[in-house]
Amino acid sequence: MDRIPILKMGPFLLVTIQVDMHDRLALMLQDDLTSRIADTGAKGVLIDISALEMVDSFIGRMIANIAGMARVLDAQTVVTGMQPAVAITLVELGLSLPGVRTALDVERGMALLRSFQDQPDEAAPPPRVDEGAGAGPDE
Amino acid sequence: MDRIPILKMGPFLLVTIQVDMHDRLALMLQDDLTSRIADTGAKGVLIDISALEMVDSFIGRMIANIAGMARVLDAQTVVTGMQPAVAITLVELGLSLPGVRTALDVERGMALLRSFQDQPDEAAPPPRVDEGAGAGPDE
Repeated sequence: MDRIPILKMGPFLLVTIQVDMHDRLALMLQDDLTSRIADTGAKGVLIDISALEMVDSFIGRMIANIAGMARVLDAQTVVTGMQPAVAITLVELGLSLPGVRTALDVERGMALLRSFQDQPDEAAPPPRVDEGAGAGPDE
Repeated sequence: MDRIPILKMGPFLLVTIQVDMHDRLALMLQDDLTSRIADTGAKGVLIDISALEMVDSFIGRMIANIAGMARVLDAQTVVTGMQPAVAITLVELGLSLPGVRTALDVERGMALLRSFQDQPDEAAPPPRVDEGAGAGPDE
């Protein structure tokens, strides 16, 4: 029981986080998930965190990292089931999860991933504005 | 983190077991799952046990109980992802999980549940032969 199972559902991968994440488990999940995306050619990753009642900066960064890795492997990430308290904590921690889409529950998350597949252009994350760079005339 | 999340996927419920089950957790899962079946009218329950590396008679009975409860609530149960060692242990423990269908992975399990929905007659579990009762002429 020292691995988080990754379930393949059609063209998507589903991960349910229900145990306390420690460093080793998080690293293994990142390894397993990136391998599975590469092996299966999955176009989307759905991470359900409805069992998480609290979150810290470690888990927040892990989710952001997974989304970043999935993106460079051409897969979208949707986080579902976030509890209100978790949303509050994430924002208070300054983790707004850039590039991660969210949905209220797994069904809506799957629908979101499917809509990304149908309209690949809309699936691309918004371009990151690099503050301070290219400020233009003021320089 | 003291509850196993139950994910609704269309007309089915998905449960991923990835932590050691103790009595209280198992009872809560039974409660939660039967409530969710009643609330949502789900026609199938998929239990993924790919994270279980070993199983004891407690977990075996819990799975059989859940399947029995789901059946009387008019929902089919499919267990997926059973590791070979777990299958060996279950049979050695004398737990053949009557009435529980199995599938190799979640995708096949979902396909099985969908096929039950399409052909409701085939979905019914085989009638249980009560050994010793109704033996007929010998009595």
